Amino acid sequence: MIKAGIIGGAGYTAGELLRILVHHPGVEVTYVHSSSQAGKAVSDLHKDLIGETDLVFAGEVRFETDVLFLCSGHGESKAFLEAHEVPGTVKIIDLSTDYREEDGTHDFVYGLPELQREKIARAGKVANPGCFATCIQLGLLPLAEKGLLKDEVHIHAITGSTGAGVKPTAFTHFSWRDSNISVYKAFNHQHLTEIGQSLRQLQPGFSHPLNFIPVRGDFTRGIFASLYTRFEGSLEEAFEGYESYYRDHPFTHVTRQNPELKQVVNTNKGLVSLEKHGDKLLIISIIDNLLKGASGQAVQNMNLMFGLEETTGLLLKGSAF
Amino acid sequence: MIKAGIIGGAGYTAGELLRILVHHPGVEVTYVHSSSQAGKAVSDLHKDLIGETDLVFAGEVRFETDVLFLCSGHGESKAFLEAHEVPGTVKIIDLSTDYREEDGTHDFVYGLPELQREKIARAGKVANPGCFATCIQLGLLPLAEKGLLKDEVHIHAITGSTGAGVKPTAFTHFSWRDSNISVYKAFNHQHLTEIGQSLRQLQPGFSHPLNFIPVRGDFTRGIFASLYTRFEGSLEEAFEGYESYYRDHPFTHVTRQNPELKQVVNTNKGLVSLEKHGDKLLIISIIDNLLKGASGQAVQNMNLMFGLEETTGLLLKGSAF
Amino acid sequence: MIKAGIIGGAGYTAGELLRILVHHPGVEVTYVHSSSQAGKAVSDLHKDLIGETDLVFAGEVRFETDVLFLCSGHGESKAFLEAHEVPGTVKIIDLSTDYREEDGTHDFVYGLPELQREKIARAGKVANPGCFATCIQLGLLPLAEKGLLKDEVHIHAITGSTGAGVKPTAFTHFSWRDSNISVYKAFNHQHLTEIGQSLRQLQPGFSHPLNFIPVRGDFTRGIFASLYTRFEGSLEEAFEGYESYYRDHPFTHVTRQNPELKQVVNTNKGLVSLEKHGDKLLIISIIDNLLKGASGQAVQNMNLMFGLEETTGLLLKGSAF
Amino acid sequence: MIKAGIIGGAGYTAGELLRILVHHPGVEVTYVHSSSQAGKAVSDLHKDLIGETDLVFAGEVRFETDVLFLCSGHGESKAFLEAHEVPGTVKIIDLSTDYREEDGTHDFVYGLPELQREKIARAGKVANPGCFATCIQLGLLPLAEKGLLKDEVHIHAITGSTGAGVKPTAFTHFSWRDSNISVYKAFNHQHLTEIGQSLRQLQPGFSHPLNFIPVRGDFTRGIFASLYTRFEGSLEEAFEGYESYYRDHPFTHVTRQNPELKQVVNTNKGLVSLEKHGDKLLIISIIDNLLKGASGQAVQNMNLMFGLEETTGLLLKGSAF
Repeated sequence: MIKAGIIGGAGYTAGELLRILVHHPGVEVTYVHSSSQAGKAVSDLHKDLIGETDLVFAGEVRFETDVLFLCSGHGESKAFLEAHEVPGTVKIIDLSTDYREEDGTHDFVYGLPELQREKIARAGKVANPGCFATCIQLGLLPLAEKGLLKDEVHIHAITGSTGAGVKPTAFTHFSWRDSNISVYKAFNHQHLTEIGQSLRQLQPGFSHPLNFIPVRGDFTRGIFASLYTRFEGSLEEAFEGYESYYRDHPFTHVTRQNPELKQVVNTNKGLVSLEKHGDKLLIISIIDNLLKGASGQAVQNMNLMFGLEETTGLLLKGSAF
Repeated sequence: MIKAGIIGGAGYTAGELLRILVHHPGVEVTYVHSSSQAGKAVSDLHKDLIGETDLVFAGEVRFETDVLFLCSGHGESKAFLEAHEVPGTVKIIDLSTDYREEDGTHDFVYGLPELQREKIARAGKVANPGCFATCIQLGLLPLAEKGLLKDEVHIHAITGSTGAGVKPTAFTHFSWRDSNISVYKAFNHQHLTEIGQSLRQLQPGFSHPLNFIPVRGDFTRGIFASLYTRFEGSLEEAFEGYESYYRDHPFTHVTRQNPELKQVVNTNKGLVSLEKHGDKLLIISIIDNLLKGASGQAVQNMNLMFGLEETTGLLLKGSAF
Repeated sequence: MIKAGIIGGAGYTAGELLRILVHHPGVEVTYVHSSSQAGKAVSDLHKDLIGETDLVFAGEVRFETDVLFLCSGHGESKAFLEAHEVPGTVKIIDLSTDYREEDGTHDFVYGLPELQREKIARAGKVANPGCFATCIQLGLLPLAEKGLLKDEVHIHAITGSTGAGVKPTAFTHFSWRDSNISVYKAFNHQHLTEIGQSLRQLQPGFSHPLNFIPVRGDFTRGIFASLYTRFEGSLEEAFEGYESYYRDHPFTHVTRQNPELKQVVNTNKGLVSLEKHGDKLLIISIIDNLLKGASGQAVQNMNLMFGLEETTGLLLKGSAF
Repeated sequence: MIKAGIIGGAGYTAGELLRILVHHPGVEVTYVHSSSQAGKAVSDLHKDLIGETDLVFAGEVRFETDVLFLCSGHGESKAFLEAHEVPGTVKIIDLSTDYREEDGTHDFVYGLPELQREKIARAGKVANPGCFATCIQLGLLPLAEKGLLKDEVHIHAITGSTGAGVKPTAFTHFSWRDSNISVYKAFNHQHLTEIGQSLRQLQPGFSHPLNFIPVRGDFTRGIFASLYTRFEGSLEEAFEGYESYYRDHPFTHVTRQNPELKQVVNTNKGLVSLEKHGDKLLIISIIDNLLKGASGQAVQNMNLMFGLEETTGLLLKGSAF
């Protein structure tokens, strides 16, 4: 059994990680750290876990684990690792943005299995991708791999409210968000950095604009991204490229039907569809932001890092409705 | 033109009051006070008012008005009136709970027109009823008037999130509240006091329990109350009593069809239906919590206090969907 | 009083028209035709109208009115006018797509006041614009008027479920649509025809692609469109152009804040915002699809055609929440 | 491996059953019958199953299975079993109402494990309980077992839209149901029959009224029931009774915190809480209507009937949000 510890256990990604790990056949969660919740039963905070775990939030950090998931806020992972000496035997999976950029200052591997599964499998430290970043990359990697990103890319992605975290704000107030739609950080979202990095890894020299409009949706889970760009091949060639790219990836599927967000909600799947209109290829890419976009992918990475079957503990029943 | 001022202008009830008053043909809003928002354009906070008002939040209290609406939180109206000497020429309508109980310590009239329209018309100070209290009383007044409340009353009422106010909390977080249901203050809701007071006013000596279960709903506007009690008459007798009681009240309607919440959302209406099952009379009563349950009723009271037609400015287009 | 008749009274647009007209100070609805609902009280179908109208659906067509609103489905207006001889004294406002294209086969005027108010004021027959078409045109007209549409336009617009009409289908099933997102008719929506027609009217020769992705949203009312295109001027120049264009139009407002859909829901407003990112101008345009996108605009057109103040009966309280 | 077949594969309960069974370690689904969908891939209809099954709907009924799940509409199970000779070796689990009443005309066992697990374990045919019936019984069984139901019971239960099935109707239209609430079949719901039967089984002679108000909620999954009745013991005695009753039942939990619907959504759990107010015991009972209220409980029954661990394949990750 892999012994797992969680730092920053009070947030949404930690809760979602626990929902997966309590039933994962190869993992035992040995402790969940939270300075704000120390001493409280985990299922008193993540209330749906009632009956599934007796864990109590630990107020002190411990390192007698095989893997450590860092679920604190952005910026806090770096602070944590600077403040603590984590033994080299402990593998680390960081869910924050802190180590996603491969800028030479650290040795974290970018943890998108559909980009570099083998590298992840050999890694001791993995930077788990962002939710928008995962969704958008799943829509573009097969084009980049063949060097077919030849013009700017137009991206529009609607996200659920859980992407905004557990802290109540004006933008997550039910009275405000219900039946509402708004845009934020248009053309400037921070995930563009990691997306560009991956695309250039597959298609060196790629430098076209990624015009990205993130949208706040009035639902809790999921990201629905529509992307299009100039593409000179046929639709069938596009399908062949995408199907070939994802053939050996168990979670990402290519569909020839019109997709809908709830096909993937509460699963670790990615789903990609293609349409050709004039010289444009329309790609729709959908994920669950908390699973394939966060904690599910973190467990997928853990499975790879420990030599388990990639899907272990991740064949989740979707909610469908 | 009636000059109106608003104290506590940043909350939901003040915003809703403004939505009504900016188009009310007999009213001019001369100022909106908010210590937290002083200097800000009213339409920068209540954003849907863009294009409808140039008002700016005032940081200082003024009394050169004909009517003052108190929209601050519960407890704050009393504090405000103790701290300020409001001229006797200024009529006051208080939307808080502070003066709803007629306990002999103040001279506010309880402002439910369906209970005591004439008394309100002569009043200088009105305590606007609570939202649950309005909805439940509309369902019970015709029985109480005839002395027909002869047993305990079972009440279940589901409320929209705007009832919980503008401040973001765990219970108004979209990720929590969306598609969720929960009960709070079962059997102990503070509105039971004013409900009991009105029922005893019509049916002296009424002392049966009001078993009231308030429920948090996953919608923004409206209260849907189902009530039942033992009733020995026929359904037709019940209809006659209710229809007779509400005949001259322009906003409250009795329906012989199965009602649904959205029939009244974004209107000042109350809607009441009746069914008879065995010896029980089932009464469904619905309102919009921000309108008939708060700011709409406040304007209805103002109309009465100033001798205007009761419906002036309140024939609102429902949202229906 | 203008006497108004409605053909096709059972659908959403007819219901919304009635919600407006029953309180319109210059209009009397003299009959509502519906073959499927003949004999039924209007408020038994459009249930929120309880207490507001005693109208009964008529099974026979009558023409003793000043204006006739055609609210039947697409294709049915043409069939109706071919089957019936409407007297020349009756003005006609058609809410279907049938006469929006100015193809020389009819004498309907395209009824977008922000495009051609004076022409509408003189018209006897008006083709009311589509909902997406209205929203998108409000976002682009000021650019087209100055000849500044110099490249393809990228359009993404999310619509509420009422856009899909009253007939229950798989795509309007609550269990399916709640918390779901999907795309339909990408790059091929039928409203592109009327949009292109208007843009070419202001900017002759405009022929760049309008890349339009319509999205089904999980809310009932409203359209939220984000549009961008290459724009060489400054943001301030853009604001000046838009503000100047809409200065005399009472319903369409330009905002310098980040807009949100619920600012316009249940009103006849259009709201447009601008941002500049690199060489792109981002335009967000929002309306209520049933009001400015359908029945509200129909009444606005009627007001113009009969010489009433444009806003008569249309200063609606927004739902805000 | 248990070979399982499904009759009536196009509906919601069949879809949910498939979502569970495709990952159940002890089951192989050998065929899914649907006359309307014959020849179509199962994942083309239950679209979230993409990548999880290659099953194709069968147009012909086959009986080479160990267990047959009947998922057709109410009334159709009886018709099916009258029309087909199912071999005695095939165990049957019926999800309709057809065999829930133990009226001496059939040999189905009522399949509520919390009522009679051992009897189910020995059964060849099981009638799976109704969703409301399951939720309400979980709230009352511990009282009935001790003979403590001494007065009428007041029941209010809000259900998600999936309870109304896949067929689109006026009451499942998104534009109607979103943010709406309504009551149906008050005091007369058909599930009262099976509830009464179980209560009398534990508390012979029980004959007090069950005043049940079913409510249509504006969410897709779950039932939230609040129940109260006169109870003379202390709250602590009540907790002891409930905790003792459910001690050995792995899915039903008693909580001392205020429960919320989403604690159980997308799980097979039941969750029960207790409060004492005056002489009333308030019981809140919640389940997922499609899981513990239908397909999850069907699999739980199957596990019992085949001697598997009761929780096999049913430790589902909740959706939580």
